Amino acid sequence: MDCCVIPLRHGGLSLVQTTDFFYPLVDDPYMMGRIACANVLSDLYAMGITECDNMLMLLSVSQKMNDKDRERVMPLIIQGFRDAAEEGGTSVTGGQTVINPWIIVGGVASVVCQPNEVIMPDGAVPGDVLVLTKPLGTQVAVNAHQWLDQTERWNKIKLVVTKEEVREAYQEAMFSMATLNRTAAGLMHKFQAHAATDVTGFGLLGHAHNLAAAQRSEVAFVIHNLPVIAKMAAISKACGNMFNLIQGTSAETSGGLLVCLPREQAAKFCSEMKSQGSAGGQGAAGGAWIIGIVEKGDRRARIIEKPRIIEVPPRGSPAANQDNSASPAPSLS
Amino acid sequence: MDCCVIPLRHGGLSLVQTTDFFYPLVDDPYMMGRIACANVLSDLYAMGITECDNMLMLLSVSQKMNDKDRERVMPLIIQGFRDAAEEGGTSVTGGQTVINPWIIVGGVASVVCQPNEVIMPDGAVPGDVLVLTKPLGTQVAVNAHQWLDQTERWNKIKLVVTKEEVREAYQEAMFSMATLNRTAAGLMHKFQAHAATDVTGFGLLGHAHNLAAAQRSEVAFVIHNLPVIAKMAAISKACGNMFNLIQGTSAETSGGLLVCLPREQAAKFCSEMKSQGSAGGQGAAGGAWIIGIVEKGDRRARIIEKPRIIEVPPRGSPAANQDNSASPAPSLS
Repeated sequence: MDCCVIPLRHGGLSLVQTTDFFYPLVDDPYMMGRIACANVLSDLYAMGITECDNMLMLLSVSQKMNDKDRERVMPLIIQGFRDAAEEGGTSVTGGQTVINPWIIVGGVASVVCQPNEVIMPDGAVPGDVLVLTKPLGTQVAVNAHQWLDQTERWNKIKLVVTKEEVREAYQEAMFSMATLNRTAAGLMHKFQAHAATDVTGFGLLGHAHNLAAAQRSEVAFVIHNLPVIAKMAAISKACGNMFNLIQGTSAETSGGLLVCLPREQAAKFCSEMKSQGSAGGQGAAGGAWIIGIVEKGDRRARIIEKPRIIEVPPRGSPAANQDNSASPAPSLS
Repeated sequence: MDCCVIPLRHGGLSLVQTTDFFYPLVDDPYMMGRIACANVLSDLYAMGITECDNMLMLLSVSQKMNDKDRERVMPLIIQGFRDAAEEGGTSVTGGQTVINPWIIVGGVASVVCQPNEVIMPDGAVPGDVLVLTKPLGTQVAVNAHQWLDQTERWNKIKLVVTKEEVREAYQEAMFSMATLNRTAAGLMHKFQAHAATDVTGFGLLGHAHNLAAAQRSEVAFVIHNLPVIAKMAAISKACGNMFNLIQGTSAETSGGLLVCLPREQAAKFCSEMKSQGSAGGQGAAGGAWIIGIVEKGDRRARIIEKPRIIEVPPRGSPAANQDNSASPAPSLS
């Protein structure tokens, strides 16, 4: 499970908690703060929990920063974290800050819930459809962006992508990672989701595998479609698959929810995700793509041999206005 | 306040949480784990909360450790942390581990409480008595222990202390830091404590000052007695007061509770702390000393000009069997 769920001494309530902290991976401190907060909250959202009662912030200041950098950077990280917490309907009431060689940003999200607020991640059944709520490829985008200044690295990928495309993909990855999965968590209730997890360090397949293993029914997850930030699949291929993006094990940070939905609900879930996404602002829902099916099986997950790559254009780009996300009729072979 | 207290959506309950993490300060990994856990829980105990519903562990593994050291050291830290959590009636159900240049050990303690479980730290009134539940001097002891191998440093203090005394003081500091303040938290209810805080990084006076500033009544705290691990006051003095131990601002780790008690309850609180301490084992209560009084004043704390130093002998030493702690009739001039 993405959170720990602790039965309390009080009237059927449970304490649900999660913690996460890591090192900066984007160069915009404000966005880094937002991403860290979205990443912590995501574990609650994966269990269908839309509320958070309290957020603690875990922070370390790098001892290598001079006073000026520290005073410029750290308040922006904190502000981004606080803003994302506020968007999640909670606030940061405490935490701890230490001095460390590296900057650390993270937090602890806690909520006290009634049982009906939680969707335990174990109810998938054969016939369900798998939906993913953010495109893959954040790690590829972050790395490719670093390579803009490293000639040797850049030369490996320059035949498949332009510098402008890398910058756009990086922006898209940053916005995507900073997007809360809260809308998806709410829609999981509306459309009777059977189970979900969030996609982070183990990549889509790793987390799909963990989720499949946790199911009460004997099911297997089969993934047919991979929504990927535009051009990231090509970069991954040009690098000799060092990221394993198409293999499904490229790490994501603050990735989308992988949701098991009843077949008749999946398209509606996707289209409502999309309409809420286009209505919202920077932290809005984004999209949702039907990526696979739940079959009878031995509690594993796999990607078919030649998955369909859905190129997700960066928001704001002309291509983004085409109906590329929330595809109502995906080809599930 | 030592914790954040979040009113919940459910029947008058509150979520009380605290987090703390820091770097190792003793060379015994198991004890380090215990100390880190005791230090996190202490913030709950300072508010009279004796229960903890969940503990998360925050850990970083040093990238500089080789595999062998890592496999030897980290499980001991985790075991110490878990054992102390169990002693606190809770368990570690989750957390996060990262790789970092330095080792980090810490945690998050959470509990969902009814209002009567919490003693808000703002009810001190003139006439109250101040009690401290662990001796001061942990930082001095830890530093002096490091100096055993540093000739230049050692030469500064060797006229006032023997190597054996430093080793004993270090052991005492380690046990003291690993001791839970849970007994004290329980006795705060029994003896109607008016307010409390735990003594950590700002030293006794720093935390006394913060507590005084938070009181509803116009009070001042006046500290007359300083219980100190034996010989640590002499070391501090021999170092030209670099620790500011007698001035009250030497940092403590996982220090005792500073408790404001009604005058007629203080001696009973101390003697019950002492009897529970001698009955218990390694993590037992320890002691308690009346250290000062609450007067009418401007919400500050001060130490009188020549405070009485109470030399607290290391447990197990012959002197420890004398009635040195829980002095029922302290000289409050």
